[in-house]
Amino acid sequence: MKSDVSRGAYWSSRISAVTPEKVFIRGYDLEDLIGDLPFTAAIYLLIKGDLPSPPEVRVLDGVLSAVLDYGLEKPGTVAARFAVSANPSMAVGLAAACLSVGRHTLATEDTSRFIVDCYSRFQESGSTMEEFADQEVARLRTSGHRIPGLGHPVFKRVDPRAAALRALAVRESCWPAAADLYEALHSSFTRLPGKEDIAINDVGMMAAVLVGLGFSPEEGTGVAILSTMPGLIAHISEELTGGRPIRVVPRDEVAYDVQSGRDYRRDRARAGWTDDWGAGAAPAEQS
Amino acid sequence: MKSDVSRGAYWSSRISAVTPEKVFIRGYDLEDLIGDLPFTAAIYLLIKGDLPSPPEVRVLDGVLSAVLDYGLEKPGTVAARFAVSANPSMAVGLAAACLSVGRHTLATEDTSRFIVDCYSRFQESGSTMEEFADQEVARLRTSGHRIPGLGHPVFKRVDPRAAALRALAVRESCWPAAADLYEALHSSFTRLPGKEDIAINDVGMMAAVLVGLGFSPEEGTGVAILSTMPGLIAHISEELTGGRPIRVVPRDEVAYDVQSGRDYRRDRARAGWTDDWGAGAAPAEQS
Amino acid sequence: MKSDVSRGAYWSSRISAVTPEKVFIRGYDLEDLIGDLPFTAAIYLLIKGDLPSPPEVRVLDGVLSAVLDYGLEKPGTVAARFAVSANPSMAVGLAAACLSVGRHTLATEDTSRFIVDCYSRFQESGSTMEEFADQEVARLRTSGHRIPGLGHPVFKRVDPRAAALRALAVRESCWPAAADLYEALHSSFTRLPGKEDIAINDVGMMAAVLVGLGFSPEEGTGVAILSTMPGLIAHISEELTGGRPIRVVPRDEVAYDVQSGRDYRRDRARAGWTDDWGAGAAPAEQS
Amino acid sequence: MKSDVSRGAYWSSRISAVTPEKVFIRGYDLEDLIGDLPFTAAIYLLIKGDLPSPPEVRVLDGVLSAVLDYGLEKPGTVAARFAVSANPSMAVGLAAACLSVGRHTLATEDTSRFIVDCYSRFQESGSTMEEFADQEVARLRTSGHRIPGLGHPVFKRVDPRAAALRALAVRESCWPAAADLYEALHSSFTRLPGKEDIAINDVGMMAAVLVGLGFSPEEGTGVAILSTMPGLIAHISEELTGGRPIRVVPRDEVAYDVQSGRDYRRDRARAGWTDDWGAGAAPAEQS
Repeated sequence: MKSDVSRGAYWSSRISAVTPEKVFIRGYDLEDLIGDLPFTAAIYLLIKGDLPSPPEVRVLDGVLSAVLDYGLEKPGTVAARFAVSANPSMAVGLAAACLSVGRHTLATEDTSRFIVDCYSRFQESGSTMEEFADQEVARLRTSGHRIPGLGHPVFKRVDPRAAALRALAVRESCWPAAADLYEALHSSFTRLPGKEDIAINDVGMMAAVLVGLGFSPEEGTGVAILSTMPGLIAHISEELTGGRPIRVVPRDEVAYDVQSGRDYRRDRARAGWTDDWGAGAAPAEQS
Repeated sequence: MKSDVSRGAYWSSRISAVTPEKVFIRGYDLEDLIGDLPFTAAIYLLIKGDLPSPPEVRVLDGVLSAVLDYGLEKPGTVAARFAVSANPSMAVGLAAACLSVGRHTLATEDTSRFIVDCYSRFQESGSTMEEFADQEVARLRTSGHRIPGLGHPVFKRVDPRAAALRALAVRESCWPAAADLYEALHSSFTRLPGKEDIAINDVGMMAAVLVGLGFSPEEGTGVAILSTMPGLIAHISEELTGGRPIRVVPRDEVAYDVQSGRDYRRDRARAGWTDDWGAGAAPAEQS
Repeated sequence: MKSDVSRGAYWSSRISAVTPEKVFIRGYDLEDLIGDLPFTAAIYLLIKGDLPSPPEVRVLDGVLSAVLDYGLEKPGTVAARFAVSANPSMAVGLAAACLSVGRHTLATEDTSRFIVDCYSRFQESGSTMEEFADQEVARLRTSGHRIPGLGHPVFKRVDPRAAALRALAVRESCWPAAADLYEALHSSFTRLPGKEDIAINDVGMMAAVLVGLGFSPEEGTGVAILSTMPGLIAHISEELTGGRPIRVVPRDEVAYDVQSGRDYRRDRARAGWTDDWGAGAAPAEQS
Repeated sequence: MKSDVSRGAYWSSRISAVTPEKVFIRGYDLEDLIGDLPFTAAIYLLIKGDLPSPPEVRVLDGVLSAVLDYGLEKPGTVAARFAVSANPSMAVGLAAACLSVGRHTLATEDTSRFIVDCYSRFQESGSTMEEFADQEVARLRTSGHRIPGLGHPVFKRVDPRAAALRALAVRESCWPAAADLYEALHSSFTRLPGKEDIAINDVGMMAAVLVGLGFSPEEGTGVAILSTMPGLIAHISEELTGGRPIRVVPRDEVAYDVQSGRDYRRDRARAGWTDDWGAGAAPAEQS
């Protein structure tokens, strides 16, 4: 198939091509792939454009398994279950959950961007990794910024899921120098007083490994969201079959703090409305 | 401006037209409207294509105020607050809330469709409204269907918000014959044993009045969703400023019922996996 | 870990359990799974509750590869690219795409439900599969219903992707009797005049195979959506890096058919508004 | 009704309160509001907590009318129409459109935040508005930042919709000093060579007026999204009734640039896969 990108069409794409009778995925005939290509390899092929090696598949499987606990303790799961309790639809539930990934949770892209940016500046710096890390940590503290991907409410020093993912990436030779730098930054940070116990968390380690696999920060967040989908499908299915028809917050969990004793007629007059709101009342106009 | 719909373009629209220098809304120059057209009239104009009369504006205002309590007892509000606690964004919160309107809550379209369909069959029936209603209620019971828009967890016989909306529509001469038929059906239904207390609820009454204003069932749901937006903006703003950073379900609200004592190695062997999952382990392949 | 479902908590779940230090996925320790469990097996485990056998993994891989062409010819891809051209965010794009799966495209659930329902009635019928199929096709035609999952704009008689998926399921002994019935229905249908060329399409075949793997109709739609994610991540990434900043429909694709020559002042007077809209103008109130 | 916020409940809200028999909106009985409160006043009340004055209602009506042209030239409208062409649902279409508001279009919050921030620094500066504006413009240019809310593809010097909105706000005495500062900044900017023709656009002016009405940046974006809803409901309704069943990009608008001549078997071997993908093939394992 010939490239026709020169035509100046409104849309162009390098991902797949559809002809009336054939579909090509990154240049491969889709019919060859069905029944042969494992889904993890398909994820890599579609996003990155080439077939992965066995170690890359194993590491990507590890990334995709790192947050399988996308359970009731994640905002997206709960948002999805509330949504489908009102509008029972798998597509709706998955969309609500996708929306609940962002600055405060699971979006690996801030960390990935941080790692890529630091590593690029490190390479230009001429410093050793340790020197660079110490300077960078000092600089971040002065400017009031934090290192993304650190800290966990329970785990101190080591997050075991992050450790399992790291060990896998090292074993498969998919641990990038940029991740060494991220660990050096973490290490320098934990030498600060009171910071000894701060661990690299699962999202931070996913970001480092995704950088090593060559995903862009945005693609990394896409992979992180993808990794939550199996758990979400299970939770939405559980809600649709065994959940409650219209979930509302149980009344005893809500504290209303609404002003009491307000007088609507009085306050509306005080706001400057004589006898009517205009179109809102107007019996005179009717007569 | 001349119609150019004949060109066979991929998209066509009767709603607004944009020229490089002017925008026409249903044929009116947008600059004439800004500062003159109240938003409620704009809603009517955009959806229905013509300017509303004063009674139509007053009734539509009533519909738009009927569910202002889009509070913490609605699934959409809670879904939105969970979503933005993770991904702080007004657009994301409003989208999550829109998604939470459907078969089980607030979608007026099922009731509107029911009313329109019954009224059309009534007009062809030659029966009186009471006869038709009794036959229809009997038919629904036989086939196991329910009348949409009835019932409320608290209000018996009368839902005061529905009653306020009805009174407004009657006062403004926007109460359609189809709504009389809906009331006749409700009335016939409440003569069944054990059904005496079932009220037409707020969503049912909104649907009847939206039919009277000439909105299609789908447009009616759109108006119902629109009516929730002010409350949702307020709730999302409240969550973004005073809420919690990453909301999770409090642990004591969750009962886990997960199988215990499962042995991964054993179960994986029993499922037919000899020593590895293929790509998943394979140090042998590496050597 | 002990079940605590008896406490009557507001939420309950059988999927995963989170303790302060451990996460259990369907009863297995998450740390055991990372680096060992391929993602396809994780999908099966989370949704269905047990580890899959090798044939089940291979068939599920096939299902997950059947629609990898989630390209520019699918509404969801285009909706996602338009959305992120305005609001550049991977999470937003994936949500917009999830939303674009439904009655008219990719939702396997209608077909799955049809297959499950037919097979259940067939088992009670005492008929042969061919007799049942002929009766059912006749019944559907009389009532004006169609068989879901049939037909393709290009492929006649056989959709090669559906054929590849079917061959895989048969080879792996995951082809259920219910799918035989679905083929018998298709076969009976194609004996009708003018219907000889109608193929079972890829969504129809996915639905049949998903039934064979034991997924509920809603879960099947979840898996179908999941299968589109890699292509969507690639397309959203392509849009974010090489797309257009604010995509709008090119002007020559739009045919506006808006009424011309409308006079706002005149039409507003005709609609019953004397000099002002009420709150909308009111210089008198100001004085 | 007594405040019970002290209970330490998981949720708290100042917006509305629901008792089994009454709903209070910002302290007012909902039944008093239905049929009396225009929707524009309800929007103000819910978000800001108090009833608006007549001028505030007129200005908010102006803001809500400023982007009524939410037509086919906006990404959100097109995303919504693509989505519902696949998944025909009003709620889905409105959600897809909400998602398409963000950094590149319609989100007034960046401009609002800029205005509020500049005004706060101006008040502490002791400079005249002109001096401050000149210094700030110089500072922004040095640091490579742009002033948000400026520029339009067609309108030079003045965007007539922005001008109409400004005139309304001035007439109603709702034009804040912060907006004067924003104009001073714009004015200073247009004295730069080559910038003479840059206008404050409609989104920039909406942001300034929303600041004047006292909405937070996030609330302002909520109001901007709300203002698009009538047009979106109309467009989604048009698509559901007169659109196309499954919209895809017309083939002649797409230029595929996919690699040709790739050999799947060869590339898979080169990637390091001997005879199978592991679980992907494995007839040997079966025996």
